[in-house]
Amino acid sequence: MIWYKDNNSDIVISTRIRLARNLDKVPFPNALTDKKKVLKDIKSAIVNSNSTLSRELEYTDLDKAGQKKREQLAEEHLISPQMLQGNDKGVFISKDRTMSIMLMEEDHIRLQVIMSGNKLHEAYDTASKIDDVMEENLTYAFDENLGYLTACPTNAGTGLRASLMMHLPALTITKNINRVINNASSLGIAVRGLYGEGTRADGNLYQISNQVTMGISEAQIIEKIENIAKQIIEMEQKARELLNEKSNAELSDKLWRSYGTLKYAQKISTSEAMALLSDVLLAQNMGIIKEKGKKSIPECMVLISPAFISNDKDLSADERDIERAKFLRANI
Amino acid sequence: MIWYKDNNSDIVISTRIRLARNLDKVPFPNALTDKKKVLKDIKSAIVNSNSTLSRELEYTDLDKAGQKKREQLAEEHLISPQMLQGNDKGVFISKDRTMSIMLMEEDHIRLQVIMSGNKLHEAYDTASKIDDVMEENLTYAFDENLGYLTACPTNAGTGLRASLMMHLPALTITKNINRVINNASSLGIAVRGLYGEGTRADGNLYQISNQVTMGISEAQIIEKIENIAKQIIEMEQKARELLNEKSNAELSDKLWRSYGTLKYAQKISTSEAMALLSDVLLAQNMGIIKEKGKKSIPECMVLISPAFISNDKDLSADERDIERAKFLRANI
Repeated sequence: MIWYKDNNSDIVISTRIRLARNLDKVPFPNALTDKKKVLKDIKSAIVNSNSTLSRELEYTDLDKAGQKKREQLAEEHLISPQMLQGNDKGVFISKDRTMSIMLMEEDHIRLQVIMSGNKLHEAYDTASKIDDVMEENLTYAFDENLGYLTACPTNAGTGLRASLMMHLPALTITKNINRVINNASSLGIAVRGLYGEGTRADGNLYQISNQVTMGISEAQIIEKIENIAKQIIEMEQKARELLNEKSNAELSDKLWRSYGTLKYAQKISTSEAMALLSDVLLAQNMGIIKEKGKKSIPECMVLISPAFISNDKDLSADERDIERAKFLRANI
Repeated sequence: MIWYKDNNSDIVISTRIRLARNLDKVPFPNALTDKKKVLKDIKSAIVNSNSTLSRELEYTDLDKAGQKKREQLAEEHLISPQMLQGNDKGVFISKDRTMSIMLMEEDHIRLQVIMSGNKLHEAYDTASKIDDVMEENLTYAFDENLGYLTACPTNAGTGLRASLMMHLPALTITKNINRVINNASSLGIAVRGLYGEGTRADGNLYQISNQVTMGISEAQIIEKIENIAKQIIEMEQKARELLNEKSNAELSDKLWRSYGTLKYAQKISTSEAMALLSDVLLAQNMGIIKEKGKKSIPECMVLISPAFISNDKDLSADERDIERAKFLRANI
């Protein structure tokens, strides 16, 4: 199931597990001269793997895919922003779009599992199984003391990044979000914007993930994220209750106005739409707005991104804003 | 027909004719010691008039009516803001609410006819007939050289004020409204806000009326207002066309968003609501919004006023804002 489709999650919108892997005795992509050959080798190993895995995967040659296709995949969170540029890159994506295997990102292999809601264990188990299958035909760069070796030392060890995309509007409105970010950070947990490091938290969406990958087991990483997420969820819920008690009419007015704007605007930018969608998601979660549109809010949040809105047309920013408004009027 | 009910006027929302009259040999109200007696005399003269007039009129003793009733009548433009305060005041209002006869305003008698749309001649003819009927039983203060005498010399002569309430959003948006006001003013025409002198042009509604009442015949006054109005209407229409040509998407976006806000807001002030209603009226007039609500926009503009929204309840400003939003959601 595509993570954003019919996604009715509350607070934790999606779970992502990423494993960084590299081939033994092969330079990392940034130092690699014959990327094409290595890309081909990994691709063959996966395609020819003896499991059901290969049948579930579809390969996209990013060199041939065109810029818009790359952007759409990034907007779906199926490839990382780093995969938007450069040659000799490809990605396997499962038919149900819950897993992707990026080839020649920063590392040779970046395996990702993404699911709706709060599913750290399920996602990790799935990733781990795929990792085992791949290892049957590939020899990973692994050091007994360090663990898996990666292009950037911050990923070495487990090579695991576990992350949750969290919708934290009340903590943002009540200005408690910076305290959350600082607390998490002091515990080795990063809180980032929608598309990862250095991006804005459009739509009040934050990604929380582990910063440390070495000297700690996979199970410990998952447990740590799980515990911090539990605390943040509680804080967000308390902030929502407080908002509701303190200024019910004002809150409900703000959220319904956002709904009205999405229902009738004729032109809207991505960032304004994300802010309004965040309001409507909050309102639905709090039971203030019972109306449900044709598509869930997380789905709208993905599908209003520039490349999705443009689709196969070549639209100016102004034209995209008009198309985006049209899409939202029909689907909210 | 009540002037604001099912009012689908474009640009000229309503026409108002006002005649100021005083009794001969009786001091003006501000210098009158026994107002009660004079009020009673005028009232009897009208009630006992031999025409159908008396049967169409209903008398409201403003001293007994209470503050909220007075405010509602002012919001309906059936009494002037000066009638909100003070004792020994009353008003006759016709059953169809097109005419009102204010007693003991600044003058002894202020006769008013108000109709939807641009109906200067019809309204003046009606006012003139009522004036004739009243004169059968009352002797007006009249000077052969000066004409009708009034408390304030600016009303003397014809005692006639002819005014049109005009909706001028495009001239306001394009910032041409001040030029219109100055031009009109140099021709002896006043352009004022919604409730007359010194009031704001809430909802982009402006009242244009003659400043001069003396040394000019009634027919000339009507003709002058008619001509100036024609010019302003043309300017407003041109401004609308220009707006539409220059930034169709932006204009339509702005107007539809206002509609969306009126449809879903849970709390709204009078002045915000007036601005949004003005947008929707413009959009309906321009064919941008085809949807029509249960009540016409001019009717909503009257019925969202504080005293109407409060109705028989004693509401705080916050509570009124909530009631106003509820009314608009149901009627837009």
